[in-house]
Formats: sequence, C-alpha cells, structure tokens
Amino acid sequence: MMVSVTDKVRFVETDMMGVVHHSNYFRWFEMARVAFLAKAGLTLGDFLTAGFLFPIGEVSCSYKAPARFDDAIRIEATLEEFSRVKMAFSYRVVRSADEVLLAEGRTRNVFTDQSGKICRLPDEYYLPLAALKEKERQEAGHDGR
Amino acid sequence: MMVSVTDKVRFVETDMMGVVHHSNYFRWFEMARVAFLAKAGLTLGDFLTAGFLFPIGEVSCSYKAPARFDDAIRIEATLEEFSRVKMAFSYRVVRSADEVLLAEGRTRNVFTDQSGKICRLPDEYYLPLAALKEKERQEAGHDGR
Amino acid sequence: MMVSVTDKVRFVETDMMGVVHHSNYFRWFEMARVAFLAKAGLTLGDFLTAGFLFPIGEVSCSYKAPARFDDAIRIEATLEEFSRVKMAFSYRVVRSADEVLLAEGRTRNVFTDQSGKICRLPDEYYLPLAALKEKERQEAGHDGR
Amino acid sequence: MMVSVTDKVRFVETDMMGVVHHSNYFRWFEMARVAFLAKAGLTLGDFLTAGFLFPIGEVSCSYKAPARFDDAIRIEATLEEFSRVKMAFSYRVVRSADEVLLAEGRTRNVFTDQSGKICRLPDEYYLPLAALKEKERQEAGHDGR
Repeated sequence: MMVSVTDKVRFVETDMMGVVHHSNYFRWFEMARVAFLAKAGLTLGDFLTAGFLFPIGEVSCSYKAPARFDDAIRIEATLEEFSRVKMAFSYRVVRSADEVLLAEGRTRNVFTDQSGKICRLPDEYYLPLAALKEKERQEAGHDGR
Repeated sequence: MMVSVTDKVRFVETDMMGVVHHSNYFRWFEMARVAFLAKAGLTLGDFLTAGFLFPIGEVSCSYKAPARFDDAIRIEATLEEFSRVKMAFSYRVVRSADEVLLAEGRTRNVFTDQSGKICRLPDEYYLPLAALKEKERQEAGHDGR
Repeated sequence: MMVSVTDKVRFVETDMMGVVHHSNYFRWFEMARVAFLAKAGLTLGDFLTAGFLFPIGEVSCSYKAPARFDDAIRIEATLEEFSRVKMAFSYRVVRSADEVLLAEGRTRNVFTDQSGKICRLPDEYYLPLAALKEKERQEAGHDGR
Repeated sequence: MMVSVTDKVRFVETDMMGVVHHSNYFRWFEMARVAFLAKAGLTLGDFLTAGFLFPIGEVSCSYKAPARFDDAIRIEATLEEFSRVKMAFSYRVVRSADEVLLAEGRTRNVFTDQSGKICRLPDEYYLPLAALKEKERQEAGHDGR
C-alpha cells in the first residue's frame, strides 16, 4: 500500500550548486504523506480542526543522485509503523524519465493535543489508516515478501 | 522613524542563476516589518493571540542589483501609511559592504478578524504605532524634507 | 495565448495565520512562466546553458482571497510585453473548486550575459516566443477584444 | 571546536500548526556549517569558484521541542568527521531564552568535481579545516572527555 505523487522540480528549489537544495526533499516527502492520508479519506486540515497536532519527531534522508530543475519526479510514501499515538513513513524519490532513485528517507511523528501532550487517535482517524496499513501488509504478503 | 535589521544571505536563498531568488526579498521585508512592530512593543504573535489577522493585500518589489550568497545585507522598513484598519510599509535592501541598493519594495496589509472581516485596531495596538508614525513625521520635518 | 498550470497547496506553504504565505505566490507565478516558455519549446535551463541570465527587475502582486492548505489551484500566465531584451508576464491564481480569483500579479525581466550586461536574444530564442506572442494577439483580436 | 550562530525565527518559517516547519532546521544547520567553514577562512563560494561541489549525502534530525515565531535561537555545529573526501557535522538548536534543546541533527557530505566524481580536497582547503578539527580534538581532551 504505497501511495505516490508526481511533480516537476521548481526553479526556486534549486540552489547555486545548480541542483535541488537538500532541505526540499522533506517538503516533497510531506506531499506524498498528505496523499497517503487522503487515500484514507483524511486531511491534515481535519486533524487540525479536530484539535490534533502531528509534530514530526525524527527525519532522515539519504541522497543518491541530484534532482535538477524541471525534472519530473515521483515521490512514494509507505506507512511503515502506525499506532494510535504515532506514524512512521518511508519515502523514495524517483526521476520519472529513467526511474533513477534520487533519494530515500523516513519521517516519524506523534499525535498530540494543542498543548503538546501525546494523545491517542480516536476511531474516526485510527480505523481508516489501520485499514490501509493492513491492506499494505496483505499486499506485501502476496508478493511473498 | 526607519527601523532596520541586518542579516547574511543564506545558501538556500540562492538559485541556479547563482543569485538570491526574487521571492526571498518579501521574506526579508517581513523581518524588517516585524522589527518595526517590535520597536512599538508589538509582535505579530500578540496580534494573532488577540484574534487579529493581518493579511497582505498588495506587494511590489523593484530589483536593482543581485544579492549573493554570504552578502551582509541591511533591510530598512518605513511605515508609510497607518490607520486603525491598514498599514503600508516601504523597504530598502542594502548590501552592507558598499551601501549598494539591492532592492526597494512596498507592502500593504489590513487588519481582520478570524473570519476575514476587516476590523479596527483597538487602542492597545493602535496607539503605540501611531506614536511611532508621528515620531517619523517629526523627524522627517526636522530634516526639512 | 495564456498558459496555465495546476497544483495543490503544500502544507509547508502555509504560515501560522493558517493561510499561504504571500511570498509563495511568486514561486507559483514562476511555475506558470516556465510552462509558458515550455510551450515555445524553451526551458530556463536552455537559457542558462547558452550563457543567458534572465534577472527579474520588477514584480507585484495583489491578493484577493487567501489560498489554504490542500486547495487545488490554477496559475495562468500571459505574456504581456516581449522584445529581444525583456519580457513581462501577468498572472492570475484561481481556486479550481469555485473559480474564485485568489491573486493577480506581474513580473518583468531582462536578458543579460553572465556579467549582468543586458543583451539581445538571438533568433533561436526570440522567434518561438515572438510567434506565441503574435498568436496571443490574434486570439485577442478574434474575441473582439 | 564548536561554532555557533544566532538568529530569530522568521514568520515565514512557521506553518499552520503554529510552529516552525521541520524542513527549516536543515537550513539553519547550513548557516552554522557555513560559519564553521568561515572560522577556517573558507566560504562555500570559494569551493564553488574552485570547481568543487559539496553534495549532501545523508542528513537526519531529531526534534525535541517546537521552535516558534520570533524565538531567539542558537545553532551549534561541530565537525565530527573530516577527510580530504568528506565531512560530517553534528548540530544542536537551542532556544536562547532558556537554553532548551529544540533539535539535534547530523549532515554528511562529500567533495566532488562538476561532473559529480568524488575528488580529494587540495591542501589549500584541507589544511585549515584539519587544523580546526585537531584543535577540537585537543579541547575535548582538556575537558577530560
């Protein structure tokens, strides 16, 4: 159960080395994470309206090849860990033209209330994501992975 | 009554043309605007906490010379227009090393409530800024301008 | 001869007022400008490789309604002025769901060599854009505008 | 031999959760890395002019507490690993008002030529940084660490 989004590298995302600045990959990861949640019928806006925050706790990225201006890219997000109090995603950024892997990364976040206290997701948010996670597990199984 | 801030150009602010991307100047203007309000004892955070928004309505910028990575710059903000419902600032960005003017700009914003309806600033916010504006007028007068 | 691109508002493009930060609209304008040039078979990368820079000289934007996280938007670019030494575009940002106009803007740029000296575009770059501009003029004529 | 820079959180660095977006910390890390190199008399601009690139290969960040608009922050960089072909830095972001640790991170980069081939730093760049690294080692020793 991997969800992907496609985009084109923006001019502003480059730096004077002529390639995309490394910080931007985390902004791309977020776009794929948002798309994953949308697949479960959820938006970050819903979480916020309901009074939940989803602060990022840990991130990492390993860069394999530079993304360049105007490259068509695909960003894939896979839900690696999920419970009522936290989520962890892994990501791959691929150059669409030749399927070259540009970067791999991970993010982990918790759910908190407005004061920053960790809280448990109610069924309304938990169940749709748990169903997607289960589907992901089954698909992996069918692959013999 | 001009307020200025100094900064150094960040690497991430450059693009593949090797100079600062034009969109970043509006982020620099904002830093000077924030410093101006701080001079009046106000922060944008105070406005937000009190339930006011300050949406930007109009901006413009004229670029004179490129800012480059690691340049020391000075951003100057002058309050050009001010009333209980709106503010307009003008800005100058100067390269500190040689006082070369890099850019000039303007921003205009209104004050609204959370629903976007224009509202009038109460004395608590209006009076400190009006006092600064008056001081500015007097200083300009003393210059014979 | 208007060219448009569509996108969804990124979470990172919002600020603590809960709406898109005003500086991002210039990054969106750029995406539409890039798409316009692509329609003429040109990329900013071609310009750079050929030794041309295209520094922005003037920009402005008027904000009509806030763009919010996850909004589907359409950014339209129209080539308003064009010669061998400069281009000016106008832009409209529209919320796709209800066609509400979110912002209108303009940018103007010149063409220079690496040293910043203004230079004239050779036919290779000039003619495809001039053809698009002429097509734009004719379409406007057919509308009786 | 730790080098630090101070800054204030910009309004544009916040997102609609009301705190600084996690991607911005890598931009702050870079400011401290630039300051470290400056301590050795080097600028990223020198590297670029000399034909070297310094692509980032790996980054990570662990977030401890949110940075908020207008917070005064201090970003500390320590050179953890250094050779003629690569560098690794660790970072700490601290809220100046109360010395609370906001985030810790790491970055690793290599040195390459324009074509992306890894290359060895010449003495001109290597020796000043090696001297700083050695000073760091000695200071750590004096601390009994």
